[in-house]
Amino acid sequence: MTLLSKAGSGEITKEMKTVAKKEGVDSEYIRESIAEGIIVIPYNKKHKSLEVLSGIGRGLRTKVNANIGTSSEHTSLEEEIEKLDAAIKAGTDTVMDLSTGGDIDKIRRTIIDRSTVPVGTVPIYQAAIEFAKRKGIVNMTEDYIFDVIEKQAKDGVDFMTVHCGVTRESIKRLRNQGRILDIVSRGGAFLVEWMIYNKKENPLFEDYDRLLEIAKKYDVTLSLGDGLRPGCLADATDRGQIQETVILGELAKRALKEGVQVIIEGPGHMPIDQIEANVLLVKKICGGAPFYVLGPLVTDISPGYDHITGAIGGALAGYWGADYLCYLTPSEHLRLPTVDDVREGVIITRIAAHAADIAKGTSGAMNKDIEMARARKKLNWEKQISLSIDPEKARRYRKESKITGDKCTMCGKYCAIDIVNKYFSQGKAEHKVK
Amino acid sequence: MTLLSKAGSGEITKEMKTVAKKEGVDSEYIRESIAEGIIVIPYNKKHKSLEVLSGIGRGLRTKVNANIGTSSEHTSLEEEIEKLDAAIKAGTDTVMDLSTGGDIDKIRRTIIDRSTVPVGTVPIYQAAIEFAKRKGIVNMTEDYIFDVIEKQAKDGVDFMTVHCGVTRESIKRLRNQGRILDIVSRGGAFLVEWMIYNKKENPLFEDYDRLLEIAKKYDVTLSLGDGLRPGCLADATDRGQIQETVILGELAKRALKEGVQVIIEGPGHMPIDQIEANVLLVKKICGGAPFYVLGPLVTDISPGYDHITGAIGGALAGYWGADYLCYLTPSEHLRLPTVDDVREGVIITRIAAHAADIAKGTSGAMNKDIEMARARKKLNWEKQISLSIDPEKARRYRKESKITGDKCTMCGKYCAIDIVNKYFSQGKAEHKVK
Repeated sequence: MTLLSKAGSGEITKEMKTVAKKEGVDSEYIRESIAEGIIVIPYNKKHKSLEVLSGIGRGLRTKVNANIGTSSEHTSLEEEIEKLDAAIKAGTDTVMDLSTGGDIDKIRRTIIDRSTVPVGTVPIYQAAIEFAKRKGIVNMTEDYIFDVIEKQAKDGVDFMTVHCGVTRESIKRLRNQGRILDIVSRGGAFLVEWMIYNKKENPLFEDYDRLLEIAKKYDVTLSLGDGLRPGCLADATDRGQIQETVILGELAKRALKEGVQVIIEGPGHMPIDQIEANVLLVKKICGGAPFYVLGPLVTDISPGYDHITGAIGGALAGYWGADYLCYLTPSEHLRLPTVDDVREGVIITRIAAHAADIAKGTSGAMNKDIEMARARKKLNWEKQISLSIDPEKARRYRKESKITGDKCTMCGKYCAIDIVNKYFSQGKAEHKVK
Repeated sequence: MTLLSKAGSGEITKEMKTVAKKEGVDSEYIRESIAEGIIVIPYNKKHKSLEVLSGIGRGLRTKVNANIGTSSEHTSLEEEIEKLDAAIKAGTDTVMDLSTGGDIDKIRRTIIDRSTVPVGTVPIYQAAIEFAKRKGIVNMTEDYIFDVIEKQAKDGVDFMTVHCGVTRESIKRLRNQGRILDIVSRGGAFLVEWMIYNKKENPLFEDYDRLLEIAKKYDVTLSLGDGLRPGCLADATDRGQIQETVILGELAKRALKEGVQVIIEGPGHMPIDQIEANVLLVKKICGGAPFYVLGPLVTDISPGYDHITGAIGGALAGYWGADYLCYLTPSEHLRLPTVDDVREGVIITRIAAHAADIAKGTSGAMNKDIEMARARKKLNWEKQISLSIDPEKARRYRKESKITGDKCTMCGKYCAIDIVNKYFSQGKAEHKVK
């Protein structure tokens, strides 16, 4: 029985209890929400090193994912291990291994063996690339795709992106629409190449039952990918994107019925004013399934800063109901990220997720902020640093300013807090706590 | 006659024409909006080096300000000049000299002489600090405050922050409310110290007519400061803050009547879910005057990253109607910013402003994003780099990845765009342009 089937039959498993305790919510709420498909706990029993379970979905802390992995142009297992460690140290909730270069099996197995957080993959990458190296992607067989999926599930992958909504119908709608950037999803592009060349339907859609069977067997969570996500602001919220979402909504329902946990993936590039409607739409169409967004990036012109542009969109998406933010790094649109980029990407995406949690009223989200405000009032620097999202950086910045005493070099002796502390009596504050 | 009086009498000045042309709007719209007080053009005729005028307000591109200036703990005119140059090079629309250390007159005059963009100051800093050094802030005379204001106006300051809303009434309301962080505005704190000690009203409120007279004489734009802005999320949107806003609304109306251009300053620290209501409130209460926000910071726990936390809040505030974003730097809450911090702060705040402009439909805001999307489709890297908000950084990142050819190290030969370009026919796209 899968976790979802157990939830459906009324069983509260130890995974549900762990998540409930961590989130400060009732374990019956977790069970019920998993059964309804609005919360998932990605968890493959074969992932032995998994220590930190994440519940993803409504009412829970907004989660952060870090993508790592090699490419055909840059392949170093050592570097990917460093990235994994950096991502976990920086506080990511999950990682995805998106390797497309080198020994993909070996890299994935090493990452799974080492990762204390859930690991996701995009199996179509491996299937397509192994064919690309031999006979060409267009000659990839349906069986091979499912064999790779099963192999990865067997290795202990906790969740998998599968672009099941890239169908002949949704591609037609996208082409009728007309786009500046057509398709920017790598998995989507592989499938489109195969489908157009072979004049066939997407096997992940056509044989969705076969996919569900594998997912069920290993209790892998499916992350229904958005292969037709907009790759620029001008393409956002168009008929191609929405057609794919409609299809994903139907597939989410089928997965739920089969006891398979499902996440829905979303854009991409999108102006701020379209984010709220997109979150609402996905939630409504997909039965409230956890919504996993990449960004969204709120402008196209910020390469080198796309982690920030994505954090703006992510904070908003999270506030309006997205449950899970995929990080972006400063390298997005320019190159494969470095170890430092990974670290920076995780921290900044955690800021976005935290800001969203405060705004949507996630239980306990404001606690640290209130403690920080109190530490500031007392000019208690050690406390301020320890409460910081990145204590090392905060400490380094303060140290570099060469200040001693309880002020900082911004205001020095003309510190507003210090002045007002003298003139206002303390201890009778009516502090509002959210 | 001030610019506002001229606008009121139907005159379209060359400053209005310049701004209209730059913004792609009608010059009659600019004139009318200045007359109504919903757009300002900060411009002091004595600022001879001013080359780049900025119109700030409804329907115009969201503007960015960079704060520079010495402190008592870190004083170097050379460094402040470097910061000024870095801020202008990074594309700031205005700068504020907030110096509180060293020879304040000399620093301000040097900055004004060198700055091609409007320069703002907070005159109460100089008045209070000069007294702090001699007899103590509490002995500062009312006349001295106004003398400093006039001196700075005479030097060519284009706009001034004046904390006129820190009144005995608003302080009482703030204390009745109770706050964690009371007052974090330096100007607000100086005034509160003086007012409580002397049991007197704020001279900037009591003698507001005298302030208006100076502003009129030199045609200085007043930026009505928010001395009671929340310094942490828990203090946001409380009775102290709103009381001050109500007072500022009355003062804005009086300024408009006297032909003095006015900006309203706003928070500060604020959860995402309160930003929309705050922008609407300020705009309604203050007759639609341009709204200038510091952040808002959407969490308190990100020292070292507060430029990003502020960009999240700023993008949202801008989308909901704020007109002018004060940057934050990575040093906020930790130290006086470095030259690099200034540069980073300006770029990131420009991203927030740009994302807001796209979302609120500012004329032409999407043009560069569409060009970028087209360059991406063509894998045209030179074009992508030249369209980037920071071409130097984009070029450096790409170069460091050691890639040659038209791909990047993220996907290498498995580039989605490249694959799809082969399989989709081009040239019949129905491209939507906002």
